[in-house]
Amino acid sequence: MHLLSINLLSDRQIADLLDSAQAFSTGAGSSAQLAGKVVFNTFYENSTRTAMSFATAAARLGAQTITLSVEHSSVKKGETLADTAATLGAMKPDAIVLRHRNDGAPAEVAAIVECPVINAGDGTNEHPTQALLDALTLRQHFGRLDGLTVAIVGDIRHSRVARSNAKLLPRLGARVRLAGPPELLPDEVPAGEIEQAIAGADAVMMLRVQRERMTDDLGDAPGEYLERYGLTEERLALAAPHAVVLHPGPMNRGVEIADGVADGPRSLIRRQVANGVAVRMAVLEMLIV
Amino acid sequence: MHLLSINLLSDRQIADLLDSAQAFSTGAGSSAQLAGKVVFNTFYENSTRTAMSFATAAARLGAQTITLSVEHSSVKKGETLADTAATLGAMKPDAIVLRHRNDGAPAEVAAIVECPVINAGDGTNEHPTQALLDALTLRQHFGRLDGLTVAIVGDIRHSRVARSNAKLLPRLGARVRLAGPPELLPDEVPAGEIEQAIAGADAVMMLRVQRERMTDDLGDAPGEYLERYGLTEERLALAAPHAVVLHPGPMNRGVEIADGVADGPRSLIRRQVANGVAVRMAVLEMLIV
Amino acid sequence: MHLLSINLLSDRQIADLLDSAQAFSTGAGSSAQLAGKVVFNTFYENSTRTAMSFATAAARLGAQTITLSVEHSSVKKGETLADTAATLGAMKPDAIVLRHRNDGAPAEVAAIVECPVINAGDGTNEHPTQALLDALTLRQHFGRLDGLTVAIVGDIRHSRVARSNAKLLPRLGARVRLAGPPELLPDEVPAGEIEQAIAGADAVMMLRVQRERMTDDLGDAPGEYLERYGLTEERLALAAPHAVVLHPGPMNRGVEIADGVADGPRSLIRRQVANGVAVRMAVLEMLIV
Repeated sequence: MHLLSINLLSDRQIADLLDSAQAFSTGAGSSAQLAGKVVFNTFYENSTRTAMSFATAAARLGAQTITLSVEHSSVKKGETLADTAATLGAMKPDAIVLRHRNDGAPAEVAAIVECPVINAGDGTNEHPTQALLDALTLRQHFGRLDGLTVAIVGDIRHSRVARSNAKLLPRLGARVRLAGPPELLPDEVPAGEIEQAIAGADAVMMLRVQRERMTDDLGDAPGEYLERYGLTEERLALAAPHAVVLHPGPMNRGVEIADGVADGPRSLIRRQVANGVAVRMAVLEMLIV
Repeated sequence: MHLLSINLLSDRQIADLLDSAQAFSTGAGSSAQLAGKVVFNTFYENSTRTAMSFATAAARLGAQTITLSVEHSSVKKGETLADTAATLGAMKPDAIVLRHRNDGAPAEVAAIVECPVINAGDGTNEHPTQALLDALTLRQHFGRLDGLTVAIVGDIRHSRVARSNAKLLPRLGARVRLAGPPELLPDEVPAGEIEQAIAGADAVMMLRVQRERMTDDLGDAPGEYLERYGLTEERLALAAPHAVVLHPGPMNRGVEIADGVADGPRSLIRRQVANGVAVRMAVLEMLIV
Repeated sequence: MHLLSINLLSDRQIADLLDSAQAFSTGAGSSAQLAGKVVFNTFYENSTRTAMSFATAAARLGAQTITLSVEHSSVKKGETLADTAATLGAMKPDAIVLRHRNDGAPAEVAAIVECPVINAGDGTNEHPTQALLDALTLRQHFGRLDGLTVAIVGDIRHSRVARSNAKLLPRLGARVRLAGPPELLPDEVPAGEIEQAIAGADAVMMLRVQRERMTDDLGDAPGEYLERYGLTEERLALAAPHAVVLHPGPMNRGVEIADGVADGPRSLIRRQVANGVAVRMAVLEMLIV
């Protein structure tokens, strides 16, 4: 069994993962659970938080993590992903965590190797553990997901975080509104005011803006983007009075999110990071037999 | 005791290593065996497969691996290998695995430190664990090495894999034929047709061609090299009907090996990778007391 | 509790750390002591010896180390140190080891996270574990620190090693003399002959010269620096007959230290490295509960 996409998880598996992660987030788990197990942390794109989060999760359960960063990889010698996957699989790790710039790379690897493959973000496709940790964070705060309205705001077109959340949250009863600068919306999402998406929402999830995607149209200065599309305290005031703020990190302060919001009392951003470890413990424990 | 060169191993040690690796390859080994031990994985040249293979082997036996990649090394600050070795040795690891671009570097380090040193490939000199895993792979397949004919084909001049195999396989009763483009043969190897080397062989071991060594003479396009010196299905048909194919990886598909051969039923290439972990477990277990 | 600066340690803590490190240096310590614990090794500056020393210390006590090197960090995406610290802290490691180019960075991180922070060198400010290992090395050799005279020679102005030693050694009863090229002395240190500082000293601690700081005034060739400011056998002869030599490494041989001195019978340089692991074991054991 793999974790490639939200859609490949059953409702039962989602519920089990969230319950298990909830227990880990409050201190459950021992280093005896996966003692002697070996996890390959295979990152074709750099990521501080996701790579360390998986490694921490593995260590908490007693597994050892072996990291392959692309700088040290045969990929630079021209090896195909399929050959790298066959090589990694032949070493018989207990799980392969994979981040890759290409949509579908984890599925490609999963078709080759015999161990579980965990998608840690593939291109603009999916980032399922991020969606699970977001769901856990909201459930912890509100006690439920059913009936919540979550506005996801920013570069929807390129966001695997948005894509995985847009699949997961509705299955748990939440309503998702997507909004962002018109040129950063996928074709199937109608352009609308960001204010409309935020209005009355229970949670606002801001996405990271890639600086290389910022153009004249988006505001060529950081402050200009914030003014037009970012989460200022004024915009947040449009949400429900009890609304909370999420961000997958790393934040561009003063670009997609104002300092006062990032550090304000409604921010659950640190809690998301903590839950990231808990969710990955749950995933590793479920997949590694 | 160190593992620096095939010639420094006794027949008894070779037999013990192969038997032990055979057991590990079929599931033996526990994370209690080297629990609490520390292995320094010291790579002055990048290598996905060898570095991860050693780290996986160590983890399977319960040892922790600490990786020194040259990017993070004092070498960039101008420290000599001898000083780096003295520093590493003073930290009292239980073993040092070393890959280095210079012939003899592991022997230099072994003369300085008090712990076992394992040669993970030095310049164009030796790569003893690769030869051991190749021997194990052939022995698993044929049930013996005695009497086999193994053709090693490619850039013999620069290949530490060829060098270690040319020492190990004959000691186990196999006959080795070396062949390759004339300009890639060492002086002591007479030039001959690749077809002659392959004819009737029980195994064909193809070596990786370094792209930077490809010249007009070798064929300036990948397909041209394959045509003239690579392992095509036509050339493989010259070998014994039961012949198998080996490659230390990473492969240049369409250069030294055709896709159909790499992925064909005679290929033991994935099995080599699996046996690499097993052989390194055997080496670590033998050397770490 | 953190380890940020020598001045924040009580006399009692210093004594306990040295006693504990002494025990570890002679073989005490088991991998059960910190089993299941997770240490973040966070290096914003490269360092072979310090990063490996901490990782080895953690492994000896059974803890797992997760390394964040700046190449893989969100810092490159523009994240502030405070946000990175909040992220790391939210993952709930058992300790964070931090090396950073900015003075005070570890204190900044310690104010944000809930776990112990260990300063592994911050800018030109402090390197407390280096001072502790130097003190241990001297105490092992002389049986005491009280009454010793230690000359620290070189780039005092930019040296966190000098700064931490200048705070620690006097608290243990030793007298410290600082000397170096005039342009490499801080304003509060009077310029004086290096020979004067070394004369009669019980120990001479040479500091690494950063090549980028060598100017015409310091001698534009390595040998010229050695002649004018380095530790030659002639200069060492001015120290007490029983004097010993220390260097934090990596050494520039033939620049700040002559080969004959580095490798001579008075050199305790390898012992310093060995004691580095012991001191870091003591620090990790004291701070991680």
